[in-house]
Amino acid sequence: MPGISFNEISGGITAPQKFMAGSIFAGIKATNLSKPDIALIHSTVPAVGAGTFTTNKVKAAPVRVSQAHIRFAEARAIVANSGNANACTGVVGIDYAKRMVKATAKALGLKERSVLVCSTGRIGVPLPIEKMEAAITQGTHCLQADGSRKAAEAIMTSDSFAKEIAVEVILDGKPVRIGGIAKGAGMIDPNMATMLCFVTTDAAIDKKLLQQALSDAVEQSFNRITVDGDMSTNDTVLMLANGAAENKPLRGSSPEFALFQTALNHVCCGLAKLIVEDGEGVSKFVTVQIRGAKSRQDARKAAEAVANSTLTKCSWFGGDPNWGRIMDSIGYSGAKIREEMVDIYYDGLLAVQNGMAAPTPFAKLQEAVANKKFTITIDLHAGKADYTVFTTDLTTAYVDFNKGE
Amino acid sequence: MPGISFNEISGGITAPQKFMAGSIFAGIKATNLSKPDIALIHSTVPAVGAGTFTTNKVKAAPVRVSQAHIRFAEARAIVANSGNANACTGVVGIDYAKRMVKATAKALGLKERSVLVCSTGRIGVPLPIEKMEAAITQGTHCLQADGSRKAAEAIMTSDSFAKEIAVEVILDGKPVRIGGIAKGAGMIDPNMATMLCFVTTDAAIDKKLLQQALSDAVEQSFNRITVDGDMSTNDTVLMLANGAAENKPLRGSSPEFALFQTALNHVCCGLAKLIVEDGEGVSKFVTVQIRGAKSRQDARKAAEAVANSTLTKCSWFGGDPNWGRIMDSIGYSGAKIREEMVDIYYDGLLAVQNGMAAPTPFAKLQEAVANKKFTITIDLHAGKADYTVFTTDLTTAYVDFNKGE
Repeated sequence: MPGISFNEISGGITAPQKFMAGSIFAGIKATNLSKPDIALIHSTVPAVGAGTFTTNKVKAAPVRVSQAHIRFAEARAIVANSGNANACTGVVGIDYAKRMVKATAKALGLKERSVLVCSTGRIGVPLPIEKMEAAITQGTHCLQADGSRKAAEAIMTSDSFAKEIAVEVILDGKPVRIGGIAKGAGMIDPNMATMLCFVTTDAAIDKKLLQQALSDAVEQSFNRITVDGDMSTNDTVLMLANGAAENKPLRGSSPEFALFQTALNHVCCGLAKLIVEDGEGVSKFVTVQIRGAKSRQDARKAAEAVANSTLTKCSWFGGDPNWGRIMDSIGYSGAKIREEMVDIYYDGLLAVQNGMAAPTPFAKLQEAVANKKFTITIDLHAGKADYTVFTTDLTTAYVDFNKGE
Repeated sequence: MPGISFNEISGGITAPQKFMAGSIFAGIKATNLSKPDIALIHSTVPAVGAGTFTTNKVKAAPVRVSQAHIRFAEARAIVANSGNANACTGVVGIDYAKRMVKATAKALGLKERSVLVCSTGRIGVPLPIEKMEAAITQGTHCLQADGSRKAAEAIMTSDSFAKEIAVEVILDGKPVRIGGIAKGAGMIDPNMATMLCFVTTDAAIDKKLLQQALSDAVEQSFNRITVDGDMSTNDTVLMLANGAAENKPLRGSSPEFALFQTALNHVCCGLAKLIVEDGEGVSKFVTVQIRGAKSRQDARKAAEAVANSTLTKCSWFGGDPNWGRIMDSIGYSGAKIREEMVDIYYDGLLAVQNGMAAPTPFAKLQEAVANKKFTITIDLHAGKADYTVFTTDLTTAYVDFNKGE
């Protein structure tokens, strides 16, 4: 995720013009009875939408409904609840997701197909739909022009902090803003994870180009993060664009679009990194860089094998520069490698040279792994492709956190 | 691993006639200074060998040497050390593995190519080869006709107990014995793991048929177990057959061979299960059965995804019948599934029916997961293929154990 640096601004998803957001309390969670559990996002003017969804074959009901609605020309609102994933809930689940949409559309005076829906939380439990319908129907006054933070808080599950970012760029002399909120924590893996992310922009951009821009940004960000290798049934990234900035509509080949894309990447990468940093029970943030792979696919396989290796993650937790486990992981990753060509660095310190221990003192490597953030660089010397993944260690706190309800 | 039940006998790898085994102390490990660290196995009469090796592209030096030697017509001895994997050690590592072979061949009066070599332990550290050569040269008196247990102990790394099994079958009226020892613990995954297993038999069987029998047995046993999803650089299964039982040489199509194969499967499955039970920091032994998959490959993908899911393994540790995580895992496994067709059982209790919560009381499911051993059965209702994997939970003790040296 290299490139231009952006000045971040405050305001999250309500930084862009003509967007409102807020949160409602419906009482979905058994505990935390006083915390809002439904987020609403609304463009007060017409808008277009884009989305990327989990590739898990077990898809939650709201994923199926939003995948259908995103094909509609207009997208004006998002309704999302925490505390219940509405996954593995059969036709009843689909019906309940549609009832969430219907209540929201009615309350905001929108067409049902212009409303997108998400859920996150425990799998296999029916939504308390009546309570939710009542809360949504009576709750639209929650929408505020600075309500981003409240929406970000309402979608938190095991997250320890709300995640918001916004940036401003100048396109055709007009300030254009992009804002985002996200929730993450457990089940974070490439190809989308129990992760919800909502992005808004006041850029003028058509639906097709918006989808292209979002897909590219997701590939550079959310698909590069992994906490535990589990991919969720509910992962969704949604984006709304309402043109309120009054820039000239973006064209795919223009420098303005290139800048817009870079800004969008910045927002998505920033949120993705916050999700990793807030992984359940995590104590280290580790960047795994593969260099010199024969193909990009090989680079990806090697990076993901290292980032998901249970034993390697345990050694990071313990501050042990156990590069043997890294060699082992790339060996079974499926990537084309020649053991005697591999170099491995810990924060730039050479640990492995030509597949064997380098002369760097062990104590120096220990110092690198003792840091809260460090980078493992693996040069396969097999070609020119590279790939980077952001991940965490595996801790006793993670296991304790995930051992039961 | 169904089928005939066998009467196990004592004696491990020295239960078959004309095999001797023992252990030597060379001082390879930094700690445990008094424990033997080299195992020797010797057939006192000519014998043939078979082997299966890790598919990791990063292969330890002894794996490369043994893969070459196993092609030789005769295989008479195995030398194996613990405390040092001799992996990622370059050409020096290959030279040292050959020096282990040479010292053993010389001490036992054998051709070098009839000696097989294995190592297990930390990666990337040179072997203390001079000490080892001296110990082997002076240590062959350790070989005993009942030395199986000592050899089993010498290859232990983080294992908490030595693993031995032997069985006897009658072929052509002659008692024929098969014995095995193994070491396991961390890095246990299908396709061979940091796992060494040595099997001996006094059956008369040619080299080619022996290899076929061993490959089949490994596929039914060691390739079905997983503790942490990491596949090691050193995994090796070696088998020696010396014909001392004087049965008629086995033919592949005979009922005698079928019985021999079943007995060999019993030995390998028994050792594989012992390895899982002794997984580092493990508190549960879990059998994951997939039924009704469209293909065997699909069944395998689904079983391995469930067995390696970090979140699912954490829930087993906590005694939480969190079937949502199982649905999630089979969803991303790559197997062809239709969510609404899936049934899941915990020890025969229906937890999921048609992809949704079944009416079985939650407390009943909790009772099943509270057991030290239980079985998860997943019926995909997509075809007729099945596959079974043996695995464990993921515990805080595992993480603590693996966090550093």
